[in-house]
Amino acid sequence: MFENKMNRTELSELGEFGLIRHLKTIIPVRNASTVKGIGDDCAVIDRESHFELVTCDLLMEGVHFDLSYYPLKHLGYKSVMVNLSDIYAMNGTPQQIVVGIGISNRFSLEAIEELYEGMLLACERHQVDLVGGDTTSSHSGLVISITAIGSVAKDQIAYRSGAGENDLICVTGDLGGAYMGLQVLNREKQIFLDNPNIQPDLSGTDYVVERQLKPEARGEFIAALKAESIHPTSMIDVSDGLASELFHICTASNKGCRIYEDKLPIDFETATLAGEMNINPTIAALSGGEDYELLFTIKQSDFNKIKLIKQIAVIGHITASEAGLALIDKSGHETPLKAQGWDGLKQ
Amino acid sequence: MFENKMNRTELSELGEFGLIRHLKTIIPVRNASTVKGIGDDCAVIDRESHFELVTCDLLMEGVHFDLSYYPLKHLGYKSVMVNLSDIYAMNGTPQQIVVGIGISNRFSLEAIEELYEGMLLACERHQVDLVGGDTTSSHSGLVISITAIGSVAKDQIAYRSGAGENDLICVTGDLGGAYMGLQVLNREKQIFLDNPNIQPDLSGTDYVVERQLKPEARGEFIAALKAESIHPTSMIDVSDGLASELFHICTASNKGCRIYEDKLPIDFETATLAGEMNINPTIAALSGGEDYELLFTIKQSDFNKIKLIKQIAVIGHITASEAGLALIDKSGHETPLKAQGWDGLKQ
Repeated sequence: MFENKMNRTELSELGEFGLIRHLKTIIPVRNASTVKGIGDDCAVIDRESHFELVTCDLLMEGVHFDLSYYPLKHLGYKSVMVNLSDIYAMNGTPQQIVVGIGISNRFSLEAIEELYEGMLLACERHQVDLVGGDTTSSHSGLVISITAIGSVAKDQIAYRSGAGENDLICVTGDLGGAYMGLQVLNREKQIFLDNPNIQPDLSGTDYVVERQLKPEARGEFIAALKAESIHPTSMIDVSDGLASELFHICTASNKGCRIYEDKLPIDFETATLAGEMNINPTIAALSGGEDYELLFTIKQSDFNKIKLIKQIAVIGHITASEAGLALIDKSGHETPLKAQGWDGLKQ
Repeated sequence: MFENKMNRTELSELGEFGLIRHLKTIIPVRNASTVKGIGDDCAVIDRESHFELVTCDLLMEGVHFDLSYYPLKHLGYKSVMVNLSDIYAMNGTPQQIVVGIGISNRFSLEAIEELYEGMLLACERHQVDLVGGDTTSSHSGLVISITAIGSVAKDQIAYRSGAGENDLICVTGDLGGAYMGLQVLNREKQIFLDNPNIQPDLSGTDYVVERQLKPEARGEFIAALKAESIHPTSMIDVSDGLASELFHICTASNKGCRIYEDKLPIDFETATLAGEMNINPTIAALSGGEDYELLFTIKQSDFNKIKLIKQIAVIGHITASEAGLALIDKSGHETPLKAQGWDGLKQ
């Protein structure tokens, strides 16, 4: 019927981004209403009066979450937030989600209700409707697939590709916390597995554990940027780590960048725990991922306006492509950045 | 943090439709643009000039497909078709899809390309764009999650709930074939497992095997109905079996129905194989599922027009709710219908 391919290229060599780049080359665009296909936080569809944004995320038990320490309500909440975050990353407003879940019989109705309660709480906070989906049985783990739909005015959309030379690089909130939260949860899980009589000790870790289990999509900053009439020249959300996201923006914009280690926003608890656990907090910020903050660039002329918004840090600037991507460390030394973010297919 | 529930209701008691009914009661609608949430083939969003349709299906290895006999290109093709079928079932036109896949490292790039080739072929045939998605690793089986987006003129939409008393019940194509195809594939797989030296014998089963492996979404009938100015009063696609779909239409419309066994469109090959395998072909049509034909109702006044469209069978009529749902068998005897369609959660 269909021909068989003789070559074999391992997915583990290619990685997720390599696979996406490859798929992009074989997937055509047919409808005039398709403005942007694969390659940004969302697909963009022309609806005449506005652009519609569509994004989809698949969360798999054992890959993206561990139910031994993940409350189902938090999981539902997070699974919605990661999608809303992609809509915000296009400078848009989320409106609807559809939810597909694959569940095994070991779950009770009450467990599924908890999962949906978390999803609905996330929807309520962001004024989004859960409008449909699919429920099916799974022979393996829990699978959650969410597609979010949103909209953005045509002259307000922010792609990854719009960063210009000398633009300022900004990031909301703080970085590395979700990664440290994951380290704490894994440490306590291991202690519990070794000796079930020892209760988990999460004291002094509230902030980072919440960053991991219950991230917030940063819609308030989209509103704040709009209020100050700042139009980001490019934007992406921080799901795989700052370094990986900087590579996406610089590659799509054909630019380089310099970021400054002493400008990276790192919470005190993140830094303290990193010290205790012998982890470099800068590495946690650069490569940890799952912070769901917004990384964006603005024109230098917007610098005075951006200072008016709390919790946005200016961490560096965009350069010509030839300059490459580099971190200036606290001693002023320049180190090339590596995109060593999380890549499920390479694990 | 969040309260724990003490009760435990088993999902296997509730089944998929019970779970969906329950979820519907706890999920609010917030945005004015959300016209229809859970409970039809698609969610319906008001885009001023038209209604937007959104549907999502999750296909799980071991539940929905068996890779031991499922070529990946066919699987990609089918996974798109089942979603397009839901858009057509609202009398709409599909336009875009987003695709989430969970894959294990045992797949090569070439295998994933075959999967996408099938998806892209389905997209090409229906003039649909694959605009984005998510790729991630899976520790268990292959997971395919597709969300399709389409549109329909506001005065043309067909819900499940619009069937009126005395409306005629129509179905496109023929029924039960996909189920017989599955029986053939399972039989040959068993023979192969028992003795790997015996080659599979699929002679005389081309049609039913293709019905199972490579179903076609029935967009041509949406165009034909439009050309004849027939507006279906209700519509659904046949994914879980005719009986189950009749229950959905009758429940949503608060009506009953009578269908006639001798009017059910059953292909010769389906009937022959059913005879050989000791399966009642009427049961295959009523409960088999996966035919992806369109089941719809029309006003009696459209009877002369519907006769002009080939491959549409009028199989019965809608009654008052009190009359219930029944099949009139070939001897004129009336048997109440049972919604014994496929339900993954009850398996």
